[in-house]
Amino acid sequence: MIVLGGSASNGIDIHLARELGADLVKLATTRFPDGEIKVTVPDIKDDDVVIVQSTYHPQEKNLFELLLAARFLKDRKADITAVIPYLAYARQNRSFAEGEAVSINTVMDSLSASGVKSIVTVNPHRSGSLMYFRGKVGVVNCEKTVAEALSGKLGDPFVLAPDKGGLEMAKKASAILKCDYTYIEKHRDAYGTVSVEKTHGGNFSRKDVVIFDDIISTGSTISQASRFAYSEGASSVSVAGIHLVMANGALEKMKNAGIERIFGTNTIPCSSAEIIDISKDIASGVKKVRG
Amino acid sequence: MIVLGGSASNGIDIHLARELGADLVKLATTRFPDGEIKVTVPDIKDDDVVIVQSTYHPQEKNLFELLLAARFLKDRKADITAVIPYLAYARQNRSFAEGEAVSINTVMDSLSASGVKSIVTVNPHRSGSLMYFRGKVGVVNCEKTVAEALSGKLGDPFVLAPDKGGLEMAKKASAILKCDYTYIEKHRDAYGTVSVEKTHGGNFSRKDVVIFDDIISTGSTISQASRFAYSEGASSVSVAGIHLVMANGALEKMKNAGIERIFGTNTIPCSSAEIIDISKDIASGVKKVRG
Repeated sequence: MIVLGGSASNGIDIHLARELGADLVKLATTRFPDGEIKVTVPDIKDDDVVIVQSTYHPQEKNLFELLLAARFLKDRKADITAVIPYLAYARQNRSFAEGEAVSINTVMDSLSASGVKSIVTVNPHRSGSLMYFRGKVGVVNCEKTVAEALSGKLGDPFVLAPDKGGLEMAKKASAILKCDYTYIEKHRDAYGTVSVEKTHGGNFSRKDVVIFDDIISTGSTISQASRFAYSEGASSVSVAGIHLVMANGALEKMKNAGIERIFGTNTIPCSSAEIIDISKDIASGVKKVRG
Repeated sequence: MIVLGGSASNGIDIHLARELGADLVKLATTRFPDGEIKVTVPDIKDDDVVIVQSTYHPQEKNLFELLLAARFLKDRKADITAVIPYLAYARQNRSFAEGEAVSINTVMDSLSASGVKSIVTVNPHRSGSLMYFRGKVGVVNCEKTVAEALSGKLGDPFVLAPDKGGLEMAKKASAILKCDYTYIEKHRDAYGTVSVEKTHGGNFSRKDVVIFDDIISTGSTISQASRFAYSEGASSVSVAGIHLVMANGALEKMKNAGIERIFGTNTIPCSSAEIIDISKDIASGVKKVRG
């Protein structure tokens, strides 16, 4: 087996090759003067290839680089697994309004057309996104690894999910951190005013609240949750996200809301967070889909 | 028939709808805060759809937008023609060095996978690029339209191809402009010094030389040709390109080489050139592929 690291693998390619006992080779990616991508695949003697390429921003460029490498290897009859630590467009798995493109569909069809036989990804926002892929799929859930990495780093922890969708993740994390958990729910009154409240109970007083979420994007939800936690007596608020998308302004917004520490994984590069490597989880996922 | 205009159609969608007597609808394209593209396709009552989207810079974004729209319409059983005035990656139709991805292959496979049944494109740099598409292909050659638009605009014209590959285009243009033509050839001596010379003869003295080329990218070849033309006695040098890619610095380079006027088509937006609309040629191409 060969691990082929793309330009957006963020070091996971290196760790993964070690975990899998596979050789690592790097994809050579440059741009032509007109901005077109040029991908050169090193001479690979093995037809069993795991390409590692995350699809964070710029999403289309990183996706296209992956497609180019896969398509090249398809012609060489390689058995291709794509490890996509952060899967772009996993939120757009249906038309949320009339006429909206189901973008993940296009991503998946393009991967299949380029010869990708199986994919491995980490905590996709909507797991239903993966049903569009016509091959084997390995979903890596790494909330356990993230929670374990937090053990002992927070004084008196309390796990908070910023919405009901995050309840399961919060519950798992709280079991590992041996603490309470709850989630907050938004209410919109007749005047459109949004209020938040704890729905599952629990007492934040003098607690070191850690907000768990799968994706930290604009930071708005997280910041609202942080302000709520402080208003309920929290000593400190930290955030643990799987995918640190951190769209423009997210960091400032979160700092302004009193968030002290940001934890996250290496599915996306992020210089303002304490990073947890999840390559071991990914290695298990790769073994499973290829086993 | 409906013409669906993408965000990178550069006005060709409007002209084309008029030429074809078709209704025009616009694709609504925005970005989510994390940079992902969101495409909304208007309610189309006709299943006969021509999507217009050029794939100039940013190439992958523009291509992906086209794929998203097509994939949406595929689910609605539409018969989809993609009009791609400037086809990105048409230069990368083979491995020019060991391991180089054949990028156009990936573009074509993705278009097929997204439900595109036929494509129409303008003067692809390498027509062999189109053999990778598994559907009908319409190639629009618009050098005649460009040459006709130049008639009367240059005092005493002389057509110059910047290399041997451009000879056919130069010959056609010179027939329309009723003037002489030639091409220049580069020679590299044993010390690596490059020299250029006219190969087909002709006298530039006091001529208004117009350099014809299919793609103006970095402007290097064109600038070299311009300097050569002046050294041979040209009164003025202009450039006529089909696709004005105009990579960073190209304009300055060309101005420094004494190029007075730049002509080109609307396959790519370009504010520093005199633009020739080629929608009529594209309309003919669409009619041809759709029988």
